[in-house]
Amino acid sequence: MYRTHTCGELRLSDAGKTVTLSGWVQRIRRMGGMTFCDLRDRYGITQLVFDQDQPELCDKINHAGREWVLQATGRVAERTSKNANMSTGDIEIIVSSLVVLNEAITPPFTIEDNTDGGDDLRMKYRYLDLRRDAVRKNLELRHKVTIAVRDYLDKQGFLEIETPVLVNSTPEGARDFVVPSRMNPGQFYALPQSPQTLKQLLMVSGIDRYFQIVKCFRDEDLRADRQPEFTQIDCEMSFVEQEDILNMFEGLSRHIFKTIKGIDLPTLPRMTWHDAMKYYGSDKPDIRFDMKFVELMDILKGYGFSVFDNAEYIGGICAKGAAHYTRKQLDQLTEYVKRPQIGAKGLVYARIEEDGNVKSSVDKFYSQDVLQQMKSAFGAESGDLILILSGENANKTRKQLCELRLEMGNQLGLRDKNKYACLWVVDFPLLEWSEEDERFYAMHHPFTSPKPEDIPLLDTDPGSVRANAYDMVINGVEVGGGSIRIHDSQLQQKMFEILGFTPERAQLNFGFLMNAFKYGAPPHGGLAYGLDRYVSLLAGLDSIRDCIAFPKNNQGRDVMLDAPTELEPAQLDELKINVVKE
Amino acid sequence: MYRTHTCGELRLSDAGKTVTLSGWVQRIRRMGGMTFCDLRDRYGITQLVFDQDQPELCDKINHAGREWVLQATGRVAERTSKNANMSTGDIEIIVSSLVVLNEAITPPFTIEDNTDGGDDLRMKYRYLDLRRDAVRKNLELRHKVTIAVRDYLDKQGFLEIETPVLVNSTPEGARDFVVPSRMNPGQFYALPQSPQTLKQLLMVSGIDRYFQIVKCFRDEDLRADRQPEFTQIDCEMSFVEQEDILNMFEGLSRHIFKTIKGIDLPTLPRMTWHDAMKYYGSDKPDIRFDMKFVELMDILKGYGFSVFDNAEYIGGICAKGAAHYTRKQLDQLTEYVKRPQIGAKGLVYARIEEDGNVKSSVDKFYSQDVLQQMKSAFGAESGDLILILSGENANKTRKQLCELRLEMGNQLGLRDKNKYACLWVVDFPLLEWSEEDERFYAMHHPFTSPKPEDIPLLDTDPGSVRANAYDMVINGVEVGGGSIRIHDSQLQQKMFEILGFTPERAQLNFGFLMNAFKYGAPPHGGLAYGLDRYVSLLAGLDSIRDCIAFPKNNQGRDVMLDAPTELEPAQLDELKINVVKE
Repeated sequence: MYRTHTCGELRLSDAGKTVTLSGWVQRIRRMGGMTFCDLRDRYGITQLVFDQDQPELCDKINHAGREWVLQATGRVAERTSKNANMSTGDIEIIVSSLVVLNEAITPPFTIEDNTDGGDDLRMKYRYLDLRRDAVRKNLELRHKVTIAVRDYLDKQGFLEIETPVLVNSTPEGARDFVVPSRMNPGQFYALPQSPQTLKQLLMVSGIDRYFQIVKCFRDEDLRADRQPEFTQIDCEMSFVEQEDILNMFEGLSRHIFKTIKGIDLPTLPRMTWHDAMKYYGSDKPDIRFDMKFVELMDILKGYGFSVFDNAEYIGGICAKGAAHYTRKQLDQLTEYVKRPQIGAKGLVYARIEEDGNVKSSVDKFYSQDVLQQMKSAFGAESGDLILILSGENANKTRKQLCELRLEMGNQLGLRDKNKYACLWVVDFPLLEWSEEDERFYAMHHPFTSPKPEDIPLLDTDPGSVRANAYDMVINGVEVGGGSIRIHDSQLQQKMFEILGFTPERAQLNFGFLMNAFKYGAPPHGGLAYGLDRYVSLLAGLDSIRDCIAFPKNNQGRDVMLDAPTELEPAQLDELKINVVKE
Repeated sequence: MYRTHTCGELRLSDAGKTVTLSGWVQRIRRMGGMTFCDLRDRYGITQLVFDQDQPELCDKINHAGREWVLQATGRVAERTSKNANMSTGDIEIIVSSLVVLNEAITPPFTIEDNTDGGDDLRMKYRYLDLRRDAVRKNLELRHKVTIAVRDYLDKQGFLEIETPVLVNSTPEGARDFVVPSRMNPGQFYALPQSPQTLKQLLMVSGIDRYFQIVKCFRDEDLRADRQPEFTQIDCEMSFVEQEDILNMFEGLSRHIFKTIKGIDLPTLPRMTWHDAMKYYGSDKPDIRFDMKFVELMDILKGYGFSVFDNAEYIGGICAKGAAHYTRKQLDQLTEYVKRPQIGAKGLVYARIEEDGNVKSSVDKFYSQDVLQQMKSAFGAESGDLILILSGENANKTRKQLCELRLEMGNQLGLRDKNKYACLWVVDFPLLEWSEEDERFYAMHHPFTSPKPEDIPLLDTDPGSVRANAYDMVINGVEVGGGSIRIHDSQLQQKMFEILGFTPERAQLNFGFLMNAFKYGAPPHGGLAYGLDRYVSLLAGLDSIRDCIAFPKNNQGRDVMLDAPTELEPAQLDELKINVVKE
């Protein structure tokens, strides 16, 4: 060992001991004849002191620079000026011998919580970025979360079982990453988008309770919160109904929050997908704050305001105490909802004045009487601000109103990162109609079970069939989701039909699963959490990147490793593939 | 829940309770007017009883078959004829209601410990094979081992950190699996052969103690104990010397054996690579039994037996108490070592007779005097059998003798799967000379540190430089290995030179690591265990396949999923690659 203690370990009670520390130079400063060096490792920072009566040592430390790796031996002494902000702030080490373990050239950015390095630079030198407390703490948190997850699931009788990474390509869902097989020329493996079918096979195997913390892969165009490889907490259970799964995984979340944050989660509210869309315009509502949608078609239609009169949907939110919003602020809100990403045509607002009267931007169309009806519909009070959107497409307008609601939540400070509001969204539709492709798609995936009472509707009105599917939502983020699966091979076949698979293609792509179901499949269901998202929520991060040790950028590149790259021609030859030149 | 209890849970103390069980039909048999059904799940088997006064239920159960999925409700009753071999053997369930949850067609092989299914069939229907106790128990063991590993390492301050799966191709080592990048046409990711360089970067980051249970990938031609994807327990530590690592991971193995097998491992012996080769002809000696090599050049050369007189190496083993071997058995042993896989020219043997005389197959060349000298060299006694090989290449001959020793160990029952002999093999050579390529290769990998005292030899006699590298060997299987790494970018550069890299190629392939070392790399080292091998050892398996849920066959195929397969032309187009037709 190059040390007897870490840099975060020594206390006043250690005074007098001779110790050896190793770590990185955080900074060196001279004061009078003394030289002080803050030595850093993962566990903390300890102050080293070099006295002028040791000229050789002083010379050595004064030649060192930031991020050099040192090994120092000396005596622990009580500090005269203590630093209450540091856990080791009561002591310092009077150094008696010093070894330079490695030199360092000047890092391209400062290794501080508030670094001067930009995103690109920090990604390229990720190994230096990870030296910063702020980033490393996220990885420590991630480690702790996985320990907590495994602890809970193990105690509940789940077995962690590794499923293969080199699997078969399944055309449903996102694009697969593929891997050419040298031993089977012209053939390719795919990397799993999730172990969905494999975990279902494990249920057919009688494994009963399975989980895995597992890398998954999707070749999608990337956004801020997407990575081509991401990690799932993947779970499946047999002989269960939806209620059992919700309880089991509510327990998991309770265990995570208790262990990691010391928070006792209340019983999770459950909201139907229908209500989530109606009251929040989103299947992942942020319920840290209320501000539910109120529909205003009955109240505001038919008074000659053509925008509303022609609308398929009129709805609004009531921002408590926001009547003080200035004209300028309201104009900015209007601009906000008119941005192409949101796409509203305009914004109608109404203030509830001190005397209870309603003053709106469309006063010329509406009597105070009608406006008072509106006020009642919101339960609004003096000092509140009502914001209204309308449009020809109800769903689109609800989505716009959702964005407006979230923005108002931000502006009014209602989205505190240290407050957590979790819920289940349940009763998702089984199918989604695509106007473009003129076909149904599975909303969750093709293995999701319809609610038994809705099965007859599969033939008459597939779009109205509800699924035994559920999402766990925290602070407006979908952290997990799952469903009860189909365990009947005939029902599964019917689903493939509805999804437009020919029997041949269904057999080709999913034959292994449908055949397995013929040998005695138990009723089963499960759920998968997105670990990256879950951890970034717990860490209060805006992007999942900072809870991933070596993330990729928006072009799917690892700029530190410089991957991907071109291959040697010999490698391509062996794999029997060619690159197509443009 | 489709059950109140599992099929392994009910005891005599539950008698009188009304319970619901769900599971698979193990078998159904009629006796008199009664029908008995053994219902199976992961946790056990429980006997269901159907009385003839319930004709409807009897009819239902008698229509069911093997592997049907049933839900039965009934009363727990004490059995009249108890079955002491079953944990639930004291009770049975008098069924009052029965639901068929799923039917099953007849499985292609019996779901029994001793199945009638061949390997190929069991691989194709792996989900049925996994229903067998014998196979499922291996996965349960694997789960327990990973829990134990994480428990130990977490307590020792290791952080589990996920490293990326889509990385850069490194030409040193085995062949990489590669992944074409759609977003970066013409470029490819590689799947990691191990997270070696990434874990070293984590040490540069100051992570201090890292581990990961992680999938690794090697595109090699497969053998019985190799899979294209396999799992490592990958570990790395900073500010440590070899001694620290050996102690830390000896502790891990001790924890695993204690937790999993209830065995207190003794302190692991350490053997130099040189001694392992000299006394066992292998760098992974099986020391469950002694039978060390004895070199006989001094004793047996120069008596006119030309085979020995021309040999570069003469050595033998002494099989205690095996003098009773018949001529036929000795001929079979001779055939064994002459098989092309081993390649010896012949076998010389000598029995120690009751009177202490030595009777050998080469008596005409050697006097009893010389033979007695030989006997002394082995410390052989009456009743022992001495087996001798010789050859022109000392290393080759030692390997042949190693095979003979292991075979004798098998024949004499000295390789008990329930006995474990662990050791460290240390002081590996740094480099291996390849006659074929006329260059040195890194014996471990290019990042392994030479022993500091041997560094001067890098210039004068690279082949004799010893590395700070070590393997953990259990029962003749290398379960783990690692090394202290080079943390100095100049020494690393020198290593690449010795390995025949031009500075440009070293920079191209490993620049990210050598650059990182310039920013203050700590002394560090680590180790990786092969989880598949470790678990199969603990499970007493001959192949790693049976501790992997969904293994691939020798052609790298998953015959259950039918992967790999050809891609749709559209997929190839998107990836800008072509398949080269033969």
